[in-house]
Amino acid sequence: MSTELTRQALSQLDAADPLTAFADRFILPEDTIYLDGNSLGALPKGAAERAAQVVSEEWGQGLIRSWNTAGWFDLPLKLGDKLGSLLGGKPNETAITDTTTLNLFKALASALRTQKTDAPQRRVILTERDNFPTDIYIAEGLADLVNSLSQETGVAYEVKLIDDEASLRAALDDSVAVVALSHVNYRTGAMWNMDEITAAIHASGALVIWDLAHAAGAVPVDLNAANADYAVGCTYKYLNGGPGSPAFIWVNARHHERFWQPLSGWWSHNKPFEMSQSYTPANDIRRFMCGTQPMTSLAMVEVGLDIALEADMAQVRAKSLELVDLFINLVETRCAGYGLELVTPREHAARGSHVSFRHEHGYEIIAALIDQGVIGDYREPEVLRFGITPLYLSRTDIWDAVEKLREILHTNAWQREEYAVRNAVT
Amino acid sequence: MSTELTRQALSQLDAADPLTAFADRFILPEDTIYLDGNSLGALPKGAAERAAQVVSEEWGQGLIRSWNTAGWFDLPLKLGDKLGSLLGGKPNETAITDTTTLNLFKALASALRTQKTDAPQRRVILTERDNFPTDIYIAEGLADLVNSLSQETGVAYEVKLIDDEASLRAALDDSVAVVALSHVNYRTGAMWNMDEITAAIHASGALVIWDLAHAAGAVPVDLNAANADYAVGCTYKYLNGGPGSPAFIWVNARHHERFWQPLSGWWSHNKPFEMSQSYTPANDIRRFMCGTQPMTSLAMVEVGLDIALEADMAQVRAKSLELVDLFINLVETRCAGYGLELVTPREHAARGSHVSFRHEHGYEIIAALIDQGVIGDYREPEVLRFGITPLYLSRTDIWDAVEKLREILHTNAWQREEYAVRNAVT
Repeated sequence: MSTELTRQALSQLDAADPLTAFADRFILPEDTIYLDGNSLGALPKGAAERAAQVVSEEWGQGLIRSWNTAGWFDLPLKLGDKLGSLLGGKPNETAITDTTTLNLFKALASALRTQKTDAPQRRVILTERDNFPTDIYIAEGLADLVNSLSQETGVAYEVKLIDDEASLRAALDDSVAVVALSHVNYRTGAMWNMDEITAAIHASGALVIWDLAHAAGAVPVDLNAANADYAVGCTYKYLNGGPGSPAFIWVNARHHERFWQPLSGWWSHNKPFEMSQSYTPANDIRRFMCGTQPMTSLAMVEVGLDIALEADMAQVRAKSLELVDLFINLVETRCAGYGLELVTPREHAARGSHVSFRHEHGYEIIAALIDQGVIGDYREPEVLRFGITPLYLSRTDIWDAVEKLREILHTNAWQREEYAVRNAVT
Repeated sequence: MSTELTRQALSQLDAADPLTAFADRFILPEDTIYLDGNSLGALPKGAAERAAQVVSEEWGQGLIRSWNTAGWFDLPLKLGDKLGSLLGGKPNETAITDTTTLNLFKALASALRTQKTDAPQRRVILTERDNFPTDIYIAEGLADLVNSLSQETGVAYEVKLIDDEASLRAALDDSVAVVALSHVNYRTGAMWNMDEITAAIHASGALVIWDLAHAAGAVPVDLNAANADYAVGCTYKYLNGGPGSPAFIWVNARHHERFWQPLSGWWSHNKPFEMSQSYTPANDIRRFMCGTQPMTSLAMVEVGLDIALEADMAQVRAKSLELVDLFINLVETRCAGYGLELVTPREHAARGSHVSFRHEHGYEIIAALIDQGVIGDYREPEVLRFGITPLYLSRTDIWDAVEKLREILHTNAWQREEYAVRNAVT
């Protein structure tokens, strides 16, 4: 491949690619190569119009009537079913609601309560040391709440951290209630084998929660085929839902009626409009909802979802792997000798759809790149991170981005200038 | 007053009213009198433009950079401070984030943990039988979570319900940890005396959480003057933030550093971008935040807030009382004999800014009214509810609305037709 690897050759491959046409479904700024769609996805055409419709027509003219006439009340489940069909979910197993962090709290609380009945000695939440930090914090928050309000002393709920597959398997003893893993790691892009790991966790008697924040819309996921228990994730990365758009929760139907989660707002009630003074949870995924959702932000999620549903996920995955391979190849050939060290696994099955490199001046290099119109991001420690989104990135984009990187490294531009970039949100 | 009470006379009062000009700041549908602003406020001019700016410019062009350049990351606190200034909050005591239900969970959990140290025998959450149901459900959800995961038997956290001020005062014994009250009742419009009740609760050794959903922007509130502990509420009613716009939480600064709340997402971390593997809570109201907020819905909140900040709350309150008095007077004179029974307290100090009547055919009557362009809503059991929003309602609107009501009652129009209205969201 390396002898023929020219921008011209890549351009010809782009022209023959059935996914190339999807780039026209998104609006991106001029003179920009956007390699941060794993943090905040791009604006799909139609999203601005949908927001305007919600605000001016549904809110402005429909007013309170729009809860029924515009379908606001049912939107979290309608969109949930659309997303669920991308993730191997059955109808009524997925809701788009609240934030990833809150949905993880609901899943953890539900899993602990199920285990309290089935195996009360299981009081450990197992998660990854290298997980997105909020996933660790929320597990700590739940354990700490219960421990601190309990009157007992001694045995308590506990969060334990694992480092890799070997330490995960070693930790799966009969104290573990639930394991919360990120399917694709936010920093390195490393991906767990969902089927194998779910089976190993179940064999040990624990339940599993998958955080799909960096997986949904990026890699093939089949939650029911994997026999997973819970999944959460966000809609504003590879699903292009918009800044801070509501997150999702998927719960395997076998868990719906066992226990309710404690964030038991009225949208999770079996008959929310009866205004009953006592709580009766709904019998399906509605049980995992809480309160009123932000309709303008929520409605736009559908625009990105509809585009994702049109694309063939096998083609998306194949192109993602090809583009990441290309990025790695170009960095290792054209930027050789500048000290960039690949962090992401090379093996296809072991990685998601972003690629990361370590460099001692990673922060300054990313700042220089952003200044030059190549938008990646930086993650502690010393990691340059690039999101590869096959729906709106081409092979020539990857070529041009690495050329900018080479130029910045070659000219030491990152040393000469001061950049005031602050780390962006994942 | 009754001898001179004509539409003409009311029109002259409107013309002389300094608040009349505010109606021009809102967009309302033609041929509609909107008496449901206590459920979903009206669309302020400028909100559609703000949404378009967030979507097309900040998201579409700024992309991930907008977390910094467009101020997204700081928006919950910036808007929180604006709202706080309306409610007697100090800087850094208020955040606009998540939903009212979730914020109540955070406040309850924080209050219980504070009491666990100060007075561990206090394990009762006291709230109102007639509270908005989700407030009861979330208290039950928290108590149930802790009780069910605790290994102990016997003593447990408990939710108890009070019916009125006498039963509240009688219930304030040394078992009560925290009292959660709605300042203005969602159904009846009855309002607690915040200063007196807060003092009584503190004297008993309990903490208080005020739900301001039907109070914020509707009645004068001074949380620090009342020496309250926590407050929560929504921005989509009298504050006109838009459908499902993010809610708020106010926490008295004296509680900020005592305990963290369990929904400890990364936005509540003291240094969120360090991506630390261990949780260190922020020292101010940020401690009560959780995860990424829906920016399009959040940004529009500022438009409604800015209008509310321009208005003189004393004038708003005076006009609210006058309009409700007028509504009651007109119903009792012009609709006499049709069986409408006032539910809302007549005493000014004891009510908020909506007015409710009971009628055995309340559901059908409201459906007929909505069909005729007078939008109120219905609440079980048999309650017709009308929100009075002085910024966009006039005295002649009240006159015209009651005339429609009289006509529907007089002609029995509510019996003749079938209406398919479903109860709207509070």
